[in-house]
Amino acid sequence: MADLNPAFSNRIPSDDDRVRQICDHCGFIDYVNPKIVAGAVVEAEDGRILMCKRAIEPRSGFWTLPAGYMENGESVSDGAAREAREEACAEIEIIDMLGMYSIPRISQVQIFFRARLANPHIAAGPESQEVALYQWEEIPMNELAFPSVRWALEDWRARKGTTGQPPALRTQGVDLKPY
Amino acid sequence: MADLNPAFSNRIPSDDDRVRQICDHCGFIDYVNPKIVAGAVVEAEDGRILMCKRAIEPRSGFWTLPAGYMENGESVSDGAAREAREEACAEIEIIDMLGMYSIPRISQVQIFFRARLANPHIAAGPESQEVALYQWEEIPMNELAFPSVRWALEDWRARKGTTGQPPALRTQGVDLKPY
Repeated sequence: MADLNPAFSNRIPSDDDRVRQICDHCGFIDYVNPKIVAGAVVEAEDGRILMCKRAIEPRSGFWTLPAGYMENGESVSDGAAREAREEACAEIEIIDMLGMYSIPRISQVQIFFRARLANPHIAAGPESQEVALYQWEEIPMNELAFPSVRWALEDWRARKGTTGQPPALRTQGVDLKPY
Repeated sequence: MADLNPAFSNRIPSDDDRVRQICDHCGFIDYVNPKIVAGAVVEAEDGRILMCKRAIEPRSGFWTLPAGYMENGESVSDGAAREAREEACAEIEIIDMLGMYSIPRISQVQIFFRARLANPHIAAGPESQEVALYQWEEIPMNELAFPSVRWALEDWRARKGTTGQPPALRTQGVDLKPY
């Protein structure tokens, strides 16, 4: 533990065709690929939507949907269900896929599902200041944490009351129009 | 560069709740999340499907669909188009999303699109021994490289001639049935 500061250089590994971060200390190659954020628009029985007021940075104090980085060893839908459990103490049932949002600028792919509360219990988890169930008109649209929260809410509203629809595909917020 | 062998220990970082690999040399925390494989079932104008015989391990000599690890700074659909270009020298147009396959065992999420060839030109890229356009009945089903190739082909066939359908959602090959 001579040096606790990682020191990476940008070089092309011998069997590769693009620049990767390589540790100057130990030669470790950090293959960085886009990360998946898994989340859900969760409806209560009366149609209200589950939202969480963030207790952590970035965007502490702003409202979000339950969502977070997918972990190894789980499916995308299991990741969305885990985040609802962690952030809102909520058990959810996945209905279908709502949207996939590529955000190349920050190398994220955000995948949202439609889901319903399996039971009425919700409570703020450690990463939430509070949780709430909102009618559409009550959603604090001017206090949303991230653009993708708005995209998911809009895509949910466009599909309200329907089933069997394809998810919205957006890149940096812009819809990918099917041919 | 005293030591070119990375030496990672499995420990829980102070602000985390699960074990991560931490470099003993420099303290680098290797947050490993599932990787995205982006691919496409690409149709020629006459309905034949573009397939590639792999020239690299794993599964060299077996047949696959153009697909590979998504890179930072691109969208999922752009990743699928890049892989078709690299593996089959093919320019493609994305039609819609075909399937999303979570494979927790190997921490991958494979996302396939339906696409069409933008022009008739195809040729083997450096990772392919050969490329071919197959009618459904001609596909070498007993020489497929990976289970997900079969899933994508089956999900494509189930949607043939239709539009506006939701993608198949599978976890380790098993369909996620919508509620």
